[in-house]
Amino acid sequence: RLSSHVQTVTLIPGDGIGPEISAAVMKIFETAKAPVQWEERNVTAIKGPGGKWMIPPEAKESMHKNKMGLKGPLKTPIAAGHPSMNLLLRKTFDLYANVRPCVSIEGYRTPYTDVDLVTIRENTEGEYSGIEHVIVDGVVQSIKLITEEASHRIAQFAFEYARNNQRSTVTAVHKANIMRMSDGLFLKKCREVAENFKDIKFNEMYLDTVCLNMVQDPIQFDVLVMPNLYGDILSDLCAGLIGGLGVTPSGNIGANGVAIFESVHGTAPDIAGKDFANPTALLLSAVMMLRHMGLHEYGRKIESACFETIKSGKVLTKDLGGNSKCSEFTNEICRRIQDSD
Amino acid sequence: RLSSHVQTVTLIPGDGIGPEISAAVMKIFETAKAPVQWEERNVTAIKGPGGKWMIPPEAKESMHKNKMGLKGPLKTPIAAGHPSMNLLLRKTFDLYANVRPCVSIEGYRTPYTDVDLVTIRENTEGEYSGIEHVIVDGVVQSIKLITEEASHRIAQFAFEYARNNQRSTVTAVHKANIMRMSDGLFLKKCREVAENFKDIKFNEMYLDTVCLNMVQDPIQFDVLVMPNLYGDILSDLCAGLIGGLGVTPSGNIGANGVAIFESVHGTAPDIAGKDFANPTALLLSAVMMLRHMGLHEYGRKIESACFETIKSGKVLTKDLGGNSKCSEFTNEICRRIQDSD
Ligand SMILES: CC(C)[C@H](C(=O)O)[C@@H](O)C(=O)O
Ligand SMILES: CC(C)[C@H](C(=O)O)[C@@H](O)C(=O)O
Repeated sequence: RLSSHVQTVTLIPGDGIGPEISAAVMKIFETAKAPVQWEERNVTAIKGPGGKWMIPPEAKESMHKNKMGLKGPLKTPIAAGHPSMNLLLRKTFDLYANVRPCVSIEGYRTPYTDVDLVTIRENTEGEYSGIEHVIVDGVVQSIKLITEEASHRIAQFAFEYARNNQRSTVTAVHKANIMRMSDGLFLKKCREVAENFKDIKFNEMYLDTVCLNMVQDPIQFDVLVMPNLYGDILSDLCAGLIGGLGVTPSGNIGANGVAIFESVHGTAPDIAGKDFANPTALLLSAVMMLRHMGLHEYGRKIESACFETIKSGKVLTKDLGGNSKCSEFTNEICRRIQDSD
Repeated sequence: RLSSHVQTVTLIPGDGIGPEISAAVMKIFETAKAPVQWEERNVTAIKGPGGKWMIPPEAKESMHKNKMGLKGPLKTPIAAGHPSMNLLLRKTFDLYANVRPCVSIEGYRTPYTDVDLVTIRENTEGEYSGIEHVIVDGVVQSIKLITEEASHRIAQFAFEYARNNQRSTVTAVHKANIMRMSDGLFLKKCREVAENFKDIKFNEMYLDTVCLNMVQDPIQFDVLVMPNLYGDILSDLCAGLIGGLGVTPSGNIGANGVAIFESVHGTAPDIAGKDFANPTALLLSAVMMLRHMGLHEYGRKIESACFETIKSGKVLTKDLGGNSKCSEFTNEICRRIQDSD
């Protein structure tokens, strides 16, 4: 029963290869008859009245209206004081949880098999507070800010995610042996929330120990939850285990049902417009979005077609080890979707 | 020409399996006729006059006199406010550089081969400043402190290390896109020092990117230098690539020629005293120490015997995949040293 009323999603194609991989996703969604219609919006930061960088109002309004966004890679303009566009988006829409499922892809060989874990990163505070000072000449301090509220919110999110996705364990990743008060507070909130989820196992582990164990035996991990910077590091490490940012989806979830799903690879200006790009990361992010919207069947259908295409190994983009164009890879996924109907 | 005047080294056997792996190292050194005599000192933190935890004076004096130390794992007593013994040692002797060579060991299989890199971690400041505050109820800040002096010192150390060890590239690992002032200062110092080492290539890379690349292709890395916390994380990650903390040596180098070499694994209380422990990490740390003392020939001889023993795969401790006791593994290394004479 693949029918549902059509929902509007804000599409931010992004820069570099962004437009072509976005086109690929749109074509695949159309083929799958996913009940989604796109509202395309450009996101180049503009300078607001007070001289502060901001998201253009049309993009902001579209996101506020639709609550759901899909986003390609964004170039951060090189200008003194210009914020990272990704950070600006997270801030503007209070996207407090970054979710990255890392699952081994059959047919795409890496040193690891059977990886199946999810990193959940607190996306709004911690080392990303942006507060820094020169104390005296040659002495600088950066402030890591941890709040009870944000820690509770991300812990709650992680446990709910685990429950809703049939996952058994949440591991809190920290350095509370060193940052006793800040990571200590984060950990305390995780422990408290764990009390309300007796069906989910709770673990605690030092970040360094997680990294060591991760490269030795990633299969032991399930859902991991952690402060901002640790999440930045660990989510990239885990992406590396399954093949890199070209195949790893990502979602940024906020309050009030707002969410932006995105590929986290770069804009690859060297191959932009040449039909060489690999749309997998954006497509799998769009699949995450479908599931988040409750459109599980469409998600499953598109995901299977994508994984089957990679597994069969016949029509692959260059970075996946093949010789095919982005459009050929896309068509192959569409063909498999049609065949499955 | 294996002769030299005898130097005295402070030996801190440590807790748990510490004494047995220390005994193994002493036996191997004796067999190799390494010109080292040991001065054993116990290190259990004591409470000083002002109630501050400190290293016992006999251990401190011994280290100040000998300047060279070898240390097994230390148990950190569980007591409110008790500092990590490892941190206390680094602080007491201003051991500002933590050096960890990670080299693949032939015959010990991991998903990676041909890893050959060195992490150099700033050991005295950064996120380990220990300065934390409650701002208001539920809001905590930790301060990351970066100084020009310590950044310059570790950068200088890294480049000198590269030059003295025939290494071609130093990569500074940072998040200066986020912590613009603190990591920015660290990076600036690395760039400045790089100017004086035209024979060494200099790279800069974000920590998240390093982690991703590290698990995909560690062979691209050579010497890496970074602030304290990043070093904590990356050194453990890299240890994981070559087989874990049981086979990874480590050295903490300070000013005025003071240095402590140590195995960074735990005390393994469950197998302590049972002759099951693997002395490799402590032995390879002792080999690093020999090289640091200029005793290269002794270092090479002992290291070869250790690697040959692992490679031949006949006499291995349990954690290395064998069935032999610590003493049997030790005897096998000694036998190979004698055979090579
Ligand atoms: C682009 C950069 C600011 C960002 C970060 O550090 O968070 C990136 O690494 C990420 O993970 O999205
Ligand atoms: C024991 C702990 C305080 C220490 C650290 O965090 O530095 C350890 O992980 C290390 O790397 O030596």
